Amino acid sequence: MPSPPNAHIASVAGSLRGSGVAVHSVPGSPPLTRAVYEKSLRSLASNEGALRDCGAMISSLGISVLPESKTRPLNSQVLPLALLPKPFPKKEFEEVWELSSVVDKLIDGLTTHPEWLVEQLQGVTEADDFTRRLVDICREVYIDGGRDHSKDIRMYLLRQDYLPTTVGNRLLQVEVNTVAAAFAGIVSRVSCLHRMTTLAALDGVAQFTLPDNKVVNAFADAIAAANRVYNETYCRDTHDVCMVVEDGEDNECDQRFLEAALLVNHNIAVHRRTLKQLAQQVCVDGKTRVAKIPNIIDPNRMVEISVFYYRAGYGPAHYVDESCWDVRKRLEESVAVKCPSVPEQLAGTKKVQQLWYSDPSVMTLFGLTEEEADRMREHFAVQVDPSVAKETVAAALKDPTAWVLKPQREGGGHNMYGDELVDTLTTSSNDELKQFVLMERMLPAPLPCLAIDTPASREASRVVPKIISEGVSELGIYSALVMKGNHT
Amino acid sequence: MPSPPNAHIASVAGSLRGSGVAVHSVPGSPPLTRAVYEKSLRSLASNEGALRDCGAMISSLGISVLPESKTRPLNSQVLPLALLPKPFPKKEFEEVWELSSVVDKLIDGLTTHPEWLVEQLQGVTEADDFTRRLVDICREVYIDGGRDHSKDIRMYLLRQDYLPTTVGNRLLQVEVNTVAAAFAGIVSRVSCLHRMTTLAALDGVAQFTLPDNKVVNAFADAIAAANRVYNETYCRDTHDVCMVVEDGEDNECDQRFLEAALLVNHNIAVHRRTLKQLAQQVCVDGKTRVAKIPNIIDPNRMVEISVFYYRAGYGPAHYVDESCWDVRKRLEESVAVKCPSVPEQLAGTKKVQQLWYSDPSVMTLFGLTEEEADRMREHFAVQVDPSVAKETVAAALKDPTAWVLKPQREGGGHNMYGDELVDTLTTSSNDELKQFVLMERMLPAPLPCLAIDTPASREASRVVPKIISEGVSELGIYSALVMKGNHT
Repeated sequence: MPSPPNAHIASVAGSLRGSGVAVHSVPGSPPLTRAVYEKSLRSLASNEGALRDCGAMISSLGISVLPESKTRPLNSQVLPLALLPKPFPKKEFEEVWELSSVVDKLIDGLTTHPEWLVEQLQGVTEADDFTRRLVDICREVYIDGGRDHSKDIRMYLLRQDYLPTTVGNRLLQVEVNTVAAAFAGIVSRVSCLHRMTTLAALDGVAQFTLPDNKVVNAFADAIAAANRVYNETYCRDTHDVCMVVEDGEDNECDQRFLEAALLVNHNIAVHRRTLKQLAQQVCVDGKTRVAKIPNIIDPNRMVEISVFYYRAGYGPAHYVDESCWDVRKRLEESVAVKCPSVPEQLAGTKKVQQLWYSDPSVMTLFGLTEEEADRMREHFAVQVDPSVAKETVAAALKDPTAWVLKPQREGGGHNMYGDELVDTLTTSSNDELKQFVLMERMLPAPLPCLAIDTPASREASRVVPKIISEGVSELGIYSALVMKGNHT
Repeated sequence: MPSPPNAHIASVAGSLRGSGVAVHSVPGSPPLTRAVYEKSLRSLASNEGALRDCGAMISSLGISVLPESKTRPLNSQVLPLALLPKPFPKKEFEEVWELSSVVDKLIDGLTTHPEWLVEQLQGVTEADDFTRRLVDICREVYIDGGRDHSKDIRMYLLRQDYLPTTVGNRLLQVEVNTVAAAFAGIVSRVSCLHRMTTLAALDGVAQFTLPDNKVVNAFADAIAAANRVYNETYCRDTHDVCMVVEDGEDNECDQRFLEAALLVNHNIAVHRRTLKQLAQQVCVDGKTRVAKIPNIIDPNRMVEISVFYYRAGYGPAHYVDESCWDVRKRLEESVAVKCPSVPEQLAGTKKVQQLWYSDPSVMTLFGLTEEEADRMREHFAVQVDPSVAKETVAAALKDPTAWVLKPQREGGGHNMYGDELVDTLTTSSNDELKQFVLMERMLPAPLPCLAIDTPASREASRVVPKIISEGVSELGIYSALVMKGNHT
C-alpha cells in the first residue's frame, strides 16, 4: 500500500523486551542448540571476570532505576535483568516484526473513529470511572466539538507484547500498549549489554544473529518528525516537547535515554511536568490553541510545546485532583501533538482489544485487508463462543489443559480450568454456554535464564548471578509512527 | 591535498574537554554576553528542580567513575564536572578544529620516520629508562628489524589540548596526546548533559550554537575501519579488538562507552586485558604474525585480534615486570594494528613536541607546507633563544609578567619570572643566555564555572553545586585517523 500524501511515517522499529535481544539460529554449523545455550549460560554464571565485566557495563550504560528520584537522583540502582538473551526462532520473530505495521494501521483506524470508540466503550464506563472520564473528553472534543481527528497530526509510540508459547513456538499477542509504552530506552541499552555477553559466551561456539535494537533512536526520530510536522503545519518554530510524567518516577532512566537521543540527535529540549504541574502552568491560547509552559529556570520565559508525550496519565492515581482532568482536556483541545491523544488511548483499552480478538470484522472495518486480518489472527489465542463452535469444544474436551473457559464479564478470578471446564462444557445448556468464551490457554515456553539476583547485587555492588530454571519472557515489538491525514 | 590511494581516513571529530561543549555567540540578538552567562549560571545553581534534573541525567548517562571497579563495579560515583558549558568564541574554536588534520599529518609524518625519532630521543634515554625501553623496541622492530612502518596500517586516536589565554582570546597548544587519549566517551555524554542545561538556562535568553559532540562514535568508526582494513589486507575475518587496560581502572566507564559504540554500531567485540595478562595469554603466530588471545569464558577458544588499543602502557607502572615489555615488543612485531604503535607513542613524547615548538623546520620536514606550519605556530606560545631574539627580549623586559625564562634542561622548578627574569636577561652574557628558552607565559582566561561539589554530592546522592569564580578549562580537540601508505 503506498503512503497517503499526508502521511509522515517516521520510522518503524522493533525490539525484544525483557531479556532484550533475539538470538536467532542461522543456517550453518554448529547451530545454537538448547544444550549449547544452557552450557554457555552456566559458564557465564560461574565466570567471575565476565560477571565483573557485566557490572561495569551496567554502570556505564546507566541500566538503572532511581528509587529515590525526587531527592537522591544520584542513588541509581541496578535493575532486575537477564544477562544473556534468550535464543529465539528467527521465522516467528520476523513474522511479528513485519506484522507491526499492520497493528499500527489498525490502531490508527480505531483512533480516527472516536464515535465508534465512544459507542463500544459505553458499557465499560458504567463500571469504570477512569475510562468514563476519557470517553467524556473524547466525546466533548471530537464528537460534540466537531474536531476531525483524522486531520490532526497523530503520533504513535507503541509496544506490542507477544508471549512465546509451547505449541509449535507460536507467538500469541498479549496486548498492544498505546500509552506510555515503556522500556524503549532501557532495552536499547540492555541490548548492548547482551551483545557483549552473547559474543563472549556464544561467538565461536554457535551460529546466531543479533538483530539491531536502536528503538530509542526510532522513538526520538518520531518525536522529532512530529515536532517538524507541527512547525510546518502551524508555521511555528519550536524545538520543545513536554514529557508528562509521574511525580517521583523510578523508571526515569528509561525516559532520560529518550531525552538524551532527542537532545543529541535532534537538538530538541524535553520539559518534564506532572499533570498537576501542567494544570497550574500550561497556557493554551484561545485563538491559535498553541500550548505554552514556563521555563523551569526562569518562569517568565514561556516555551511553546509541539508535542505532549504522556508517560503518565494511564492510571487514575495520576489525576490527583479535578484540575488534572481539566488540563488533559485543555491539552486535547490544543494544536500540540498528543502521544497518545485521548482516542488513541481509548483504542488501546482492554475492551477494544477484546473486541478485535472476538470479532475479526472489526479489523477489516478499520482498514485492514482480509489477508492482513488473517495474519493478525494467527497470533491471537483462539477464542470462541462455546455454544456454537462445536469443533473447538471437542478439541478442548480432548486436551482440557490447553484451554480456559472465561465468563464474559470484566475482571478475572472466574476462569475455569481442567475438570471444572470439562464439567461445564459437557453439562451446560447452549443458553448457559453463551455467557462464556472458550479460549486457548497461553502456555509460555520456559527456558533457563541467567538473571541478576537484584537484592544481593545491590548489597554487594557487583553482579550476583541467579539461574532461573523456568524463565519466561515476553517479546515486545516497538513501533513509532507519525500520521497526518487518513490511511487510505 | 588529495587522499593518497592507500589512505583510509575514517573520521575526524572534535570536542571540548572538561566543561565539554562550546557555546558560540552567533550573529543575532540578544548575544551571549558574559553578564547573561553569569546570571544564568547563578539561576541554575539556585534552582532545585534543575539540579535534580542534572542528577537524574547524570545517573542515566552513566557519567561516572568506578572507584572499586575490580570488586564492586556497580558502585559507580559521580565525576567532578561542570554543569554548564563555558562560552567560547566561535572563530578560535573553528581555527583549532580545522588545524586538527594538520596535526594528524605531522604526527603521522613523525611516526613513519623511526630513525629520526630514535636519533632525537637519544639524549632523553640516558636519563629516562621508560623512554629508553620504547626507543629500544622502536629500533629493534623498525630499524634493525627492517620493518617499513609506512606500509603498516596505522591508527591515530588523538587529543590535542589547548589553553584559552587572556591575550586576544588566543588558544595555545599545550600538548598532543598520542597514547590513551582519554574522555572521548565521557565528553560525548557530558555534552548531552550540557545540551540539556544550556537549553534550560540560555535558550530564549541568548543566541548561541551548540556544536555536535559525537567523538566516541568517531573513535569507534576509526577502530572499525582499522578492523576492516586489517581483514582486507591480510585476508582475515575477525571482528575482535583488544583494549589494553590498567588493572583496576577508575576511568573504565569512559572506555566502556567506546566498547558500547563498537558493539552496537559495528558488532565488534572488545576484549579487555592488562599487559601482564597479555604477556601470559597472547599467541603471535611465527609465520603469519597473527595475534590471538583466549576467550574470557572459554580459554580453549582462541580469538584473533585485529587491533590492540592501548589505554595503558604509557607509564612505567603499567609494566609490572619484564614480561610486559616483552609482550609489548611481540605485539609490535605482529600484523595487528597498534594504537599507538611504539613510533607513534614516541612521536607524542614531550621531547619531540618540544622540538617542533622550538624548531619550526621540523614541521615542514615531516610533510607540512609552510602555510600549515605557520598556522600551527599561531597556536604555539612564543619561545626563543634570548641570546639572539633581541626584539622578543625587549618585549619581555617591557611586560615581564607575560613571560617565563626556562633552562634547557628537562624538568620544571627552575623557571624564572618577574624580577628574576628581568635581572637575568639584563645582566647575563650572550653565552649564558644561550642555555635558556624565553617563553611566553600561558595565562589562562578564567570565567566563573558551575561545578559539582563532588564529595558533598556523593554524600547526599544528589547534585550539590559549587560556583568556582575563577574557572579555567582546556579545550580538547579529538581526531581519529586510519592510514595505510604514505601521506603524499
